[in-house]
Amino acid sequence: MTTMPRARRCVWLSATLDLGAIFGADFRAHAPHIELVDAVTAAEDPASVDFALAWKPAADAFIPFPRLAFVSSIAAGVDNILACPSLPQGLPVLRVRDDDQARMMAGFAAWHVLWHHRSMGDYLAQQREGVWRRKLRKQPAREVRILILGFGHMGRVAAGVLSGLGYDVRAVARRAPDPALVPHGVTVEAGPDALDRLLPAADMVINLLPLTEDTRSLLAADFFAKLPAGAVLIQLGRGEQLIEADLLAALDAGQLSAASLDVFQVEPLPADHPFWRDPRILITPHEASEPDAGALARHIAAAAERLDRGLPVETSVDRGAGY
Amino acid sequence: MTTMPRARRCVWLSATLDLGAIFGADFRAHAPHIELVDAVTAAEDPASVDFALAWKPAADAFIPFPRLAFVSSIAAGVDNILACPSLPQGLPVLRVRDDDQARMMAGFAAWHVLWHHRSMGDYLAQQREGVWRRKLRKQPAREVRILILGFGHMGRVAAGVLSGLGYDVRAVARRAPDPALVPHGVTVEAGPDALDRLLPAADMVINLLPLTEDTRSLLAADFFAKLPAGAVLIQLGRGEQLIEADLLAALDAGQLSAASLDVFQVEPLPADHPFWRDPRILITPHEASEPDAGALARHIAAAAERLDRGLPVETSVDRGAGY
Repeated sequence: MTTMPRARRCVWLSATLDLGAIFGADFRAHAPHIELVDAVTAAEDPASVDFALAWKPAADAFIPFPRLAFVSSIAAGVDNILACPSLPQGLPVLRVRDDDQARMMAGFAAWHVLWHHRSMGDYLAQQREGVWRRKLRKQPAREVRILILGFGHMGRVAAGVLSGLGYDVRAVARRAPDPALVPHGVTVEAGPDALDRLLPAADMVINLLPLTEDTRSLLAADFFAKLPAGAVLIQLGRGEQLIEADLLAALDAGQLSAASLDVFQVEPLPADHPFWRDPRILITPHEASEPDAGALARHIAAAAERLDRGLPVETSVDRGAGY
Repeated sequence: MTTMPRARRCVWLSATLDLGAIFGADFRAHAPHIELVDAVTAAEDPASVDFALAWKPAADAFIPFPRLAFVSSIAAGVDNILACPSLPQGLPVLRVRDDDQARMMAGFAAWHVLWHHRSMGDYLAQQREGVWRRKLRKQPAREVRILILGFGHMGRVAAGVLSGLGYDVRAVARRAPDPALVPHGVTVEAGPDALDRLLPAADMVINLLPLTEDTRSLLAADFFAKLPAGAVLIQLGRGEQLIEADLLAALDAGQLSAASLDVFQVEPLPADHPFWRDPRILITPHEASEPDAGALARHIAAAAERLDRGLPVETSVDRGAGY
C-alpha cells in the first residue's frame, strides 16, 4: 500500500547562507511535499514547523521553535549545530551521509596527493616559461606513505581509491573498524597510541576528522614534530583543528614541505592572511565536497517519512562524541 | 635446486636517451649478472651480446647484432622499436608490463580528470589574486561521462580508479575483454562500431592506445566532431595519434573545451609551438608514467632466466597488430 507523504514544513536556520535560495529548487523537485521556509516566516506560526535544516545557526536560532522533530545539517559535519547555544537538549541532530559526497571528497584528496607526489605544479610553471623538462626517475606510489585521519564513510572511500593507485595507505580511527569495511591493502589502527605510532611513518597526512573537543587544535606543533621531516599536510577537515601559526613554523623549519588547505580558522580567509601568498600552501575555499542537493532533499524526505509512520528518526550523530 | 643465473651481456640501443646512465645502477642492484653495455663497446665483440634494451633505436642500430635472443623496450610502448628498419625479422620484441607503471598512469589520468571536472585551475588563479570564491553547486562525478580509449593493463586500472571515484566510465577495446577483468561499474565495448557509438556520450576522452597503423592520426577533426560540444581530451598515448592543427581548430570552435597533452608529434615540444601559450591546453613533457627502473631490470632478468633454462622468451607483443 502506497500512501501520499504528509505535507511538512521545514525551517532553515543559518547565519551565513541563504539555504532557501540554495536548496529551494531541489526540495521542490525531489520533495515537493516539504515546504522550505525562512525563520521569519516560520516564526509567524511555529506550531506549523515540523523540523529544521541548519548550517551555522545563529545563537538564538532554535528559540522560536521548541517542538521540532529533528534538525539536519546540510552536510556531513554537525559541529556547527551542536555548538549552537539554543539547540534543545534531546533534539535529534542528523548529518548527511551521501555516497556522491564521499566520492567527491576522495577525488579531492587524491588530486592533492597526486599534486604533491608528482610535483604537478612544476609542470604548470614550466608551461608558463615554455620549458620542457622531464623528471626521469619517479618515486613509485608504493613508496609514498599516506595516513588518513578518520575512517568514516569518506575516509574509507579515500583509502580505497588511494590504495588502488598504489599508495601505502594507513588510517587512524577512534574504534577498530569492521574488517569487511577496510579496503584491500589498507591498514587501520585504533586506540589511544595509534596516532603516535603512525605519524613517524607518514609522508602525507590527509585530515578528514570531524570537529570535536578531541580534534580541536589537533594539528599543532607537537603533531607536526612527530612526522618525518618534509611531510605534507592535506587539511580537509575543519579550520579549528589547525593551529595556523604552528603550520607556518613547521614549514619554515622544513618539518613540513607543503600543505593543501581547504578549511581555515576564519572563512572566508582574510585578505591579509599570510597563507594567500605562501608558495608552499595550496588554498581552496572550503570546496572539497558537499552533498548533492538532490541527495539532501531526499535525505530530509526519508526522515520525514519515518515521522509519517510514527517511527523515531534515525541518526548516526552521537552528541557525547561530538559528531 | 637453485642455480646461479648465467652472466649475460645486454646492449642498449637508443638515439635519444643514455640508457646506460639511466638504468645502469638498477641493473647492478637488481640483476648484477647482466652487464649493460653501450653499442660501441658491444660492437667490439658482437658474439658476446645476448639481448638488447632499446628506446627509439637509430635506423641501423641492430645491424651489428644479428644474433640477439630478444629486444626489450624500456616501457609499455614498442612502436619505436617496431619502426626501426634494421630490426631483424622474427626477433622477439618485449614490452614491460609493470603494475607500478599502470597505477602511475591511472593516477596521472585521474589527476587530469579531476583538474578539468573540478576546474582546479580556477583555485590556483584565485589564490594568485587572493580571492575566496566558492562554486556552491558542484556537478557530481556520476554525471561526468568518461571514455577510455584502450583497455589493456593501464586502461583497466584507470577505469577501476575512476569508477571508484564515482565517474561514469566506459572503455573501448579492440576485442571484448574477459568479464572478470572489467571493474565494477565499467562498461567496455569492442568491435568496429564501438567508437562511433561511444563518442557522442563522452564528456572526457582519455587516450591510452598504443601507436599502430590503426591509431595513427586517430585524434583528428572527424573524431572530435563526434564528441558532444565542450568535451575534454586527455592525451596520454603517443604524439603521432593526434593531428595537432585539428585539436586547435576544435578548441577554437568550442567542439572541445580543453585538453591535457602529455605526448606530441615532436618531442621536446618546439619552443615556438602554439600549444605552449594556449590557456586551454595543459602540457606535461611525456611524464605520465614509466616503469620503475628496478622492475625493468627484473623483467630483463626474468627473460634471461628463460634463456638459461632453454625456454623461448615470452612476449605479449604481436608484430602484426603493431603492439
